[in-house]
Amino acid sequence: MDSIKIGMIGFGTVGAGVVNLLQDRGDSLAERVGVKLELVRVSVRDINAKRDARVDPLMLTTDPYEIANSDNVDIVIEVMGGEEPAIGLALQSLKNGKHLVTANKLLLAMRGEQVYQAAEDAGVELGFEGAVAGAIPIIRSIKNAFAADRISQVQGIVNGTGNYILSRMTDEGKAFDEILKDAQALGYAEADPTFDVEGIDSAHKIAILGSLGFETPIDFGDVYTEGISAITPEDIDMAREFGYRIKLLAIAKRNTDSIDVRVHPAMIPADNLIANVNGALNSVEVVCDVSGTSMLVGPGAGSGPTASAVMGDVVDISRKIINGAAGKTPPLSVPCKSRTKIPVRPMDEVMSEYYLRFTVPDRTGVLSMIASALGRHKISISSMIQRGRMENEPVSVVLTTHMAKEANLKKALGEIDDMNVCAAETMAIRMVGAG
Amino acid sequence: MDSIKIGMIGFGTVGAGVVNLLQDRGDSLAERVGVKLELVRVSVRDINAKRDARVDPLMLTTDPYEIANSDNVDIVIEVMGGEEPAIGLALQSLKNGKHLVTANKLLLAMRGEQVYQAAEDAGVELGFEGAVAGAIPIIRSIKNAFAADRISQVQGIVNGTGNYILSRMTDEGKAFDEILKDAQALGYAEADPTFDVEGIDSAHKIAILGSLGFETPIDFGDVYTEGISAITPEDIDMAREFGYRIKLLAIAKRNTDSIDVRVHPAMIPADNLIANVNGALNSVEVVCDVSGTSMLVGPGAGSGPTASAVMGDVVDISRKIINGAAGKTPPLSVPCKSRTKIPVRPMDEVMSEYYLRFTVPDRTGVLSMIASALGRHKISISSMIQRGRMENEPVSVVLTTHMAKEANLKKALGEIDDMNVCAAETMAIRMVGAG
Repeated sequence: MDSIKIGMIGFGTVGAGVVNLLQDRGDSLAERVGVKLELVRVSVRDINAKRDARVDPLMLTTDPYEIANSDNVDIVIEVMGGEEPAIGLALQSLKNGKHLVTANKLLLAMRGEQVYQAAEDAGVELGFEGAVAGAIPIIRSIKNAFAADRISQVQGIVNGTGNYILSRMTDEGKAFDEILKDAQALGYAEADPTFDVEGIDSAHKIAILGSLGFETPIDFGDVYTEGISAITPEDIDMAREFGYRIKLLAIAKRNTDSIDVRVHPAMIPADNLIANVNGALNSVEVVCDVSGTSMLVGPGAGSGPTASAVMGDVVDISRKIINGAAGKTPPLSVPCKSRTKIPVRPMDEVMSEYYLRFTVPDRTGVLSMIASALGRHKISISSMIQRGRMENEPVSVVLTTHMAKEANLKKALGEIDDMNVCAAETMAIRMVGAG
Repeated sequence: MDSIKIGMIGFGTVGAGVVNLLQDRGDSLAERVGVKLELVRVSVRDINAKRDARVDPLMLTTDPYEIANSDNVDIVIEVMGGEEPAIGLALQSLKNGKHLVTANKLLLAMRGEQVYQAAEDAGVELGFEGAVAGAIPIIRSIKNAFAADRISQVQGIVNGTGNYILSRMTDEGKAFDEILKDAQALGYAEADPTFDVEGIDSAHKIAILGSLGFETPIDFGDVYTEGISAITPEDIDMAREFGYRIKLLAIAKRNTDSIDVRVHPAMIPADNLIANVNGALNSVEVVCDVSGTSMLVGPGAGSGPTASAVMGDVVDISRKIINGAAGKTPPLSVPCKSRTKIPVRPMDEVMSEYYLRFTVPDRTGVLSMIASALGRHKISISSMIQRGRMENEPVSVVLTTHMAKEANLKKALGEIDDMNVCAAETMAIRMVGAG
């Protein structure tokens, strides 16, 4: 074998990073693998689009199936993103016996089981380190490093844009909208930031990590998702006063007969390491029965880190091809059929401590109405702060609660809402303990 | 193949962890691997010693070569530690075609090249995740995850005992000796703490990580090593005043034509994530050209974490055996012969900023003598604090310097020493910038 032939589907930011890495480090990669890694074909939507990397124009095609069906491609890199047509291309590539490396988190969150099974059936390699948390080696750590252990929890900050916005809100005391606009101007947030700020991107990633860590299929529809767009500078400020930081947390957790898989803003004790992961950094904590808690931190996205992760998989797979070891081990390390479905616990049954901020008139009796509504639903208060005292203006009443059931909180907040005393929407943020 | 047969050399803390993990999680491991993992023989120094795990006494032998030479062992786990007789046993096991998993950092730091070459020659698997930083998956991350990237630096806190002592000194303001005694009583430090507190254990680990990351053999004698036993509460206090924390740092760094491999206390900016890795935790930062800086944090030692890492390797190798992929890829991912020797830069040539604490009489002219000695050797001062003003008592003069060459600092401190003005040994701590 003279070289490993690579076909790439998609040529956006990550694709450009891959091309640059292949061009800049070609000799070194060849040395590490034993043969040259050769990019032979790249499919794009628009041949003439501007890109941050250059390839021979003859290499480009607008038909991605040319790559999935090519006789001249050993490894397909899929960096086009999205569910369709990526799923068809991934399955076709695998069916044709090509090894697949993908950075497509949406695809794996929605259709992972199909992709894993197809790779296993075809006896080929599947790499997806780049799909979650950029260059942070979380996928192979879960698949291999903690293979002898039992993972009880995977939790982290897996969206760089959201973390960047929250960090700047925390540092500068400014409102979400203002920081978002600036983040968009600086290229940290996309024109449509929904996936990042509403937690959907984080949900994709935690669905993949949870599925891998607990060896179970996860229906993406079961992942509870709540974003950061409602967080106010006041909440961040109050969090600080309580000794906490607000982070957008993705949580996958094992219960006795179920798992939790959810994304929402969380208050984390300020001295917890994860509370100090700021800017666009990502971090993932893995809790194991025997080895305890490990945490991986790093740049979670961007052309360089994601391309490095994608190419790390390509190098790994290429070495296996050269050494005759490719496709020998199933893509998830365990056969798909050994994975058993563990139900996701409905959000209503989750227990948390809560931070609650009510905007109410500064009037005798209001606080007692709120407290008794909470009490009726078995929610007990652990601390209270009242803020603001402008005449005739509503004030903020901030409560923290002891452990309470999500369903009970919803009912209590509904009743409080019905009292028509609140001058603005009540804010509830779950508090997550240290460790 | 009905089962994978495991022989274990050594049955101390880590060995007991391995036995417990095999017993407690046997079914789950069998499911993950496809066949049972069976411990068949364990060599010990003393058959009757008390241990934290139990095996059938008939399994025990006092002759470790029974394991290295057994026809009934597929994987040898070496957890006896030390250089001799471990090296002979490791080489013999490999020569006999057994896969080897070792947690012996001293062995790999001193004799790694021999072990790597022997594993490659024999076409067997070699796992050593447990040798560095416990369950933190740093070995496989360097070998595989960052395989397409170029590692420019590996740096971290890789000794839990040292970090525990420094963290408590920082929290409690107490002296090294007092905390060490307490750490010994609590089991955090050994009766002879030399390896941990003098940086030797960290040096073993950074030699292994540097060798792997830069693909070069490293002579352990070239690793500069300085411990934490001379650090005083005053230094920790002054560090805090400057906005720094003191950590025992292990550093492997690429220069243009050389590498740095060294262990010494370092002042790290307090807002740097690594400065906040406290207690017995370890953390390793990997800086890559393309993907930037990633950091891995976790329990760096102890029975559970190390056993989990050892067994992670055993599971990995067992899967490869079952799938016919074992020994196909060289143990360091690249063939030993492709590793080229990069010289370790002599410590004298290393550039640092320094924290310097002089203990001198509070007398006109002393400070100017010190400043001119530093100036003569091109060391410029960036800040100065004088502390204490008891009559007739010496005071502490603390200086921080701009970048200076180690050799120049040594000469300057030698000259200052010769002036006979210092009432106590001068303390010099290197300051390490953020990122």
